[in-house]
Amino acid sequence: MNTLNRIGVFDSGLGGLTVLDAICSANKGLSVVYFGDTARVPYGSRTPETIIHYAEQDVRFLLSKNVEAIVVACGTVSAIALEALKQEFPIPIIGVIEPACDAAAKVTKTNHICVIGTQATVHSHAYSDYITSRYPHLNVSGIGCPLFVPLIENGFREDDPITKLTVDRYLSPIRNTDIDTLILGCTHYPFLYNVIQETLPDIQLIDIGVALSEAVGKMLPLPTNISDNFVEYCFSDRETGFKRFDTEHLRNLPNGPIKAINIETF
Amino acid sequence: MNTLNRIGVFDSGLGGLTVLDAICSANKGLSVVYFGDTARVPYGSRTPETIIHYAEQDVRFLLSKNVEAIVVACGTVSAIALEALKQEFPIPIIGVIEPACDAAAKVTKTNHICVIGTQATVHSHAYSDYITSRYPHLNVSGIGCPLFVPLIENGFREDDPITKLTVDRYLSPIRNTDIDTLILGCTHYPFLYNVIQETLPDIQLIDIGVALSEAVGKMLPLPTNISDNFVEYCFSDRETGFKRFDTEHLRNLPNGPIKAINIETF
Repeated sequence: MNTLNRIGVFDSGLGGLTVLDAICSANKGLSVVYFGDTARVPYGSRTPETIIHYAEQDVRFLLSKNVEAIVVACGTVSAIALEALKQEFPIPIIGVIEPACDAAAKVTKTNHICVIGTQATVHSHAYSDYITSRYPHLNVSGIGCPLFVPLIENGFREDDPITKLTVDRYLSPIRNTDIDTLILGCTHYPFLYNVIQETLPDIQLIDIGVALSEAVGKMLPLPTNISDNFVEYCFSDRETGFKRFDTEHLRNLPNGPIKAINIETF
Repeated sequence: MNTLNRIGVFDSGLGGLTVLDAICSANKGLSVVYFGDTARVPYGSRTPETIIHYAEQDVRFLLSKNVEAIVVACGTVSAIALEALKQEFPIPIIGVIEPACDAAAKVTKTNHICVIGTQATVHSHAYSDYITSRYPHLNVSGIGCPLFVPLIENGFREDDPITKLTVDRYLSPIRNTDIDTLILGCTHYPFLYNVIQETLPDIQLIDIGVALSEAVGKMLPLPTNISDNFVEYCFSDRETGFKRFDTEHLRNLPNGPIKAINIETF
């Protein structure tokens, strides 16, 4: 009998739900433990030491739930801590950077791509390091967009003039350049997909959740006789914000139990 | 011989430096241990349980430094956790709410004041509870302004169009009302003092740091023979952001040692 594969998915907060949504859409028959570190979000403006320390605790919690593989559904952790986590924990761990870069490399025609993300992500050079080694013919630029996450977390919608002005502020420098592909290097950013596309109509956007969900399907054999997903939602600060989150972008998430976790103890 | 009094001042991050600046300006001869919880900022969007837990750790750290009194230089902690801290720790602990309300009560002529702060501060009703008990003739309104802290922390200046538009969004509802006094109920907000005053030219602003610094002077006898302040700056995530912070608003802060603290261990 085929049984559900059990994976862990974590993020600094709620943004990783966009990745989980894409994973659930593309991979039926998965059992998922989602962890959102809502008591310590955001990670993107913290130092690498602190980000790695938090990510280690997040992984230890998921291991305590007997998951078989872990998806780092956080652009910042993927950029800063993925190698440290892979070395420390003997379990398959997959981040967003490689799938996103592979997807971007496939579509760019000008061979110049841009990555947007938190300050920590952009400063890490994780995207450019991977692309330089794997696709040496590509150029990579990066732009930190630190106000995007607070805008989304505080309920500013895509069509709000403040959102539009902020998107234009960060992204207008790449208009009329030879960049033709933009990696949305933070799992919150799909909530701004439409306004970013309007601001940069000629640029191809890469959603890291979509790119990652294909990689997850390759990593784990999925049962063919199960058409549902089971998700347990765990947060370090109760379900803060989960219910008021913009669920229009999260249509593939199944209902599931919501639990509070004391992450400091892991 | 008069010696330096040693107090602890803490905030969720860097905003409390505006309070420390006001305290140093008004109270020469103080030795201060400042703690900013930069590894877990912001507090204002978290649940009361988590805010109290973090505040208890912050106080335990300051007690380990042998301070004689503690100033809660954080609007959110003052609103959510002050009573719990006072009951738990046998040391004078002072928050921003009472001094700010006392200052507002002195200047209002219409008897209608407004408090702006984080979502947690406004939802707590801490300001209105105190005012209702102490000044029953006053009316209190409240407005949550959750994007102000991220704007300031991410370097958006007062004169930036995005800052102005956001200030107008949150505060235009109180224009042309009978509110004549506005408490800036978060220690970050003095960085927006000028743009808030331009948006609401007829309203008297109350800076909680200035109000609090007078209360600190009354709490502790200060030596008359010492004209300097000594400050030790402690942060949970190294000095992240401290150096790029807008120090034009922090002219009274003395130089001092900067230290990193593992706050989870307290």
